[in-house]
Amino acid sequence: MRASDLAARLGGVLEGDDVELAACAGLEEARPGDLSFCKDAKHVPLVQATKASAILLPPDWTHGAPCAIIRVADPNHACMAAAEIFAPPAPVRAPGVHPTAIIDPSVRLGANVHVGAYTIIEKGSEIGDGCVIEAQVFIGENCTVGAGTHIYPQVTLREGTKLGKGVILHCGVRLGGDGYGYNTTMENGLPKIEKIPQLGIVELGDGVEIGSNTTIDRARIGRTYIGPMTKIDNLVQIGHNVKVAGYSGIIAQAGVAGSTQIGTGCLIWAQAGISGHIKIADGVQVGPQAGVPQSLDGSEKYVVGTPATSLKNVAAITLAPKMIMKLRQDVKALKQDVAKLAGTTGPA
Amino acid sequence: MRASDLAARLGGVLEGDDVELAACAGLEEARPGDLSFCKDAKHVPLVQATKASAILLPPDWTHGAPCAIIRVADPNHACMAAAEIFAPPAPVRAPGVHPTAIIDPSVRLGANVHVGAYTIIEKGSEIGDGCVIEAQVFIGENCTVGAGTHIYPQVTLREGTKLGKGVILHCGVRLGGDGYGYNTTMENGLPKIEKIPQLGIVELGDGVEIGSNTTIDRARIGRTYIGPMTKIDNLVQIGHNVKVAGYSGIIAQAGVAGSTQIGTGCLIWAQAGISGHIKIADGVQVGPQAGVPQSLDGSEKYVVGTPATSLKNVAAITLAPKMIMKLRQDVKALKQDVAKLAGTTGPA
Amino acid sequence: MRASDLAARLGGVLEGDDVELAACAGLEEARPGDLSFCKDAKHVPLVQATKASAILLPPDWTHGAPCAIIRVADPNHACMAAAEIFAPPAPVRAPGVHPTAIIDPSVRLGANVHVGAYTIIEKGSEIGDGCVIEAQVFIGENCTVGAGTHIYPQVTLREGTKLGKGVILHCGVRLGGDGYGYNTTMENGLPKIEKIPQLGIVELGDGVEIGSNTTIDRARIGRTYIGPMTKIDNLVQIGHNVKVAGYSGIIAQAGVAGSTQIGTGCLIWAQAGISGHIKIADGVQVGPQAGVPQSLDGSEKYVVGTPATSLKNVAAITLAPKMIMKLRQDVKALKQDVAKLAGTTGPA
Repeated sequence: MRASDLAARLGGVLEGDDVELAACAGLEEARPGDLSFCKDAKHVPLVQATKASAILLPPDWTHGAPCAIIRVADPNHACMAAAEIFAPPAPVRAPGVHPTAIIDPSVRLGANVHVGAYTIIEKGSEIGDGCVIEAQVFIGENCTVGAGTHIYPQVTLREGTKLGKGVILHCGVRLGGDGYGYNTTMENGLPKIEKIPQLGIVELGDGVEIGSNTTIDRARIGRTYIGPMTKIDNLVQIGHNVKVAGYSGIIAQAGVAGSTQIGTGCLIWAQAGISGHIKIADGVQVGPQAGVPQSLDGSEKYVVGTPATSLKNVAAITLAPKMIMKLRQDVKALKQDVAKLAGTTGPA
Repeated sequence: MRASDLAARLGGVLEGDDVELAACAGLEEARPGDLSFCKDAKHVPLVQATKASAILLPPDWTHGAPCAIIRVADPNHACMAAAEIFAPPAPVRAPGVHPTAIIDPSVRLGANVHVGAYTIIEKGSEIGDGCVIEAQVFIGENCTVGAGTHIYPQVTLREGTKLGKGVILHCGVRLGGDGYGYNTTMENGLPKIEKIPQLGIVELGDGVEIGSNTTIDRARIGRTYIGPMTKIDNLVQIGHNVKVAGYSGIIAQAGVAGSTQIGTGCLIWAQAGISGHIKIADGVQVGPQAGVPQSLDGSEKYVVGTPATSLKNVAAITLAPKMIMKLRQDVKALKQDVAKLAGTTGPA
Repeated sequence: MRASDLAARLGGVLEGDDVELAACAGLEEARPGDLSFCKDAKHVPLVQATKASAILLPPDWTHGAPCAIIRVADPNHACMAAAEIFAPPAPVRAPGVHPTAIIDPSVRLGANVHVGAYTIIEKGSEIGDGCVIEAQVFIGENCTVGAGTHIYPQVTLREGTKLGKGVILHCGVRLGGDGYGYNTTMENGLPKIEKIPQLGIVELGDGVEIGSNTTIDRARIGRTYIGPMTKIDNLVQIGHNVKVAGYSGIIAQAGVAGSTQIGTGCLIWAQAGISGHIKIADGVQVGPQAGVPQSLDGSEKYVVGTPATSLKNVAAITLAPKMIMKLRQDVKALKQDVAKLAGTTGPA
């Protein structure tokens, strides 16, 4: 798109060459053909070094630029608008079932459902209105998929999984796998390890979004439940019988062990681990890589470290070496003082 | 199912309405239509608040319930039995090959094998009697799958993988990928990074179960080996040439780096990391999120923290801030005492 | 293969039985039919205990072996050569498109491209010369795949993904999923969580290799970029808008949060976590399980721990308990000395 056309659409004013633009990018990563943006004079060196072909700048910018300039009231906002203009249209997933999809005759498909190539939907399942089930998906027996749900390629739903409305499942999500559960007894000196049947299901509330390659295990009995509007990132592990009340976030590579309950509005940061059979109170945040061995009652709103504790306690551990060095100096000086005093007062 | 019918099947006695029941659930998560259970009077408040339609209680329970009661000798055990009664039958994977499965003519299929839709089995592979290979699986060349093995949808086995008898692979398991191995030399001031051929295989013993989206790399040469009855959870990483002797457990998101050997009956807890080229002695447990940089000879049976050490040592670090605060007070008091003494005995 | 034939091919001399050999293995893991190797007399006990059928040993080895011996100048090197001889030929992926592959007519396929069964390539995509796209792969709209790239089964590329030349993607890799991005506001006392459109793409440079089940999110705007020759292991998470300059390594289960920049020649070890919106200078190494909350300017070349710091600082924390115990003893002794002195000089 011509810079002049873009300027017109953004309500801006072009200065310099009417270059061709194809994408947005930050000042440092921009290449020829890119549009970048800056609103703050402290980034003048980045502006001077950018390889962008044009740059969105505020009306009062006086530091120039090594490329075309489009002056706009709010460069950040204009850049987002430009990104939406540049973005190719999202792939169209029109209603209809691809001829290679294998759908059991007993499946109830809602209105305006898209089912992609090589997707399998087994008997007894129900797909709500307006769902997009992309290619190469596996939906096992007796699953329920709420209206308006979008399932990306190569997701698997084991039998009995229930999805609310407007759920989004990214590529490689695994719902309903058997949880880790065994009975171990000793027999003739060797452990005898027997699988515990995993008889429950996974249920996701309305508006839940699950990132790529995340795994959520079916319940041993009952339901593993992810409440409405909860957003789970990539490569997260949710154990059997976990309950998340809703409106919570769980960031990449975090793990929640079996039967744990997470309250409303919690935020579990990346790579954190939460033990099984505990409760996290509403609104608690668990910091990145934290390990939570016990229930959190909400008296601390943000915990870090392993075992997870308040930021203050972790800071104290981090500061320990410095404090110890100071103490060692003090004790050494005290010993000398005491020895001197002992000398003054004669041998003890 | 009617509560009266269920009571009869469980050998219990119904009190109250003959409600319709469809599933089991814990006291807190139960909804109308659910059966819950309690055996301990300390949970009376949970019983009083439950939304279950019926509850399994012991014969001597005197605290009532807000719903129908089924009295049984062992409520926990009865609830498991009820869960098996409620559970829909597992999907039937009858012997037979789906017409869309692509199986090379050289493949040897045992008796009573199920092969699902869109599954691919490449040349030279051998599938034992009674195996269930579900839909959309990829089995590369010259793989061996032992009798009675169950492979869930969307698993991939790279060429040469060997599975024992009765193995279970959950959705998204990746066996036999190339391990991380490169030779890096400098050339004209830039690193020259060359891939090291990964010529070995992955071999799993009898009774091994692998969780969803777990990855196990093929050996550089020889075998990456997971011994019999070892149970691996979801999202675990096993590097090339790792050996696990057998009867061990590796919990979700743990990782074991290349060429490490894990003994018999070990338990590696969630998110733990074990360095490469070390040995973990038989029966050792590695705690959640622990990081193990060196071999463990079994003199400690349970290690935690990073670098992993005994629980006692980690506790000491956790206690350090408190001890330091006490020492600072003591040293301050000592300084004052010494100063006073120095004053008493005259200027030093 | 006969030991005598192998000895001839390796330029070695056979002593003992002309056994049949089929694979290489380390001394401890070797089984009958295996060839092992040893060059160092300190491993004599392992040689004596090995179950290998033959062993590669140096010309001057005088400790014997419980099996056939093949003497060679360099046993390690000879074992690698033998492994290449034993290794079955890699599966042939001949040029050609499997009849079940679904390729949009608009797709531009280069010369000598292999496309496997049940693979889908959507409209507008371009596949370079000599690419191998294995079975059950999904390539969305408008993707670009550079010449000589190898994509293993069950990989997904969301729309717009760009791969350089000679890229390798292992099974289950997910490129271009939506990053974790939401705007949360409060509405009627509940959080209102709105998805932020993820409009950018993922771009991989030449020679990049990505391990099994690793996920790389598309940019919010612009590109998530992995520079040339960067090697990423299994189960790694790369957030939206991350930039890796090139020639770096990221080991299994590590995670890099959104918008972070990683320099040239960095090494991020297993299970490490790097926060969002920071910069890691060229050549920095981040140790296993380390957590990096702030930019690293390269003044430390190797950081460990959470929050990541120099090895020296972490060691100091590990040593803290011992130092504290020593200080407590010193302070106790000082108190006694001071009390004695106070007694000597009379009541204070």
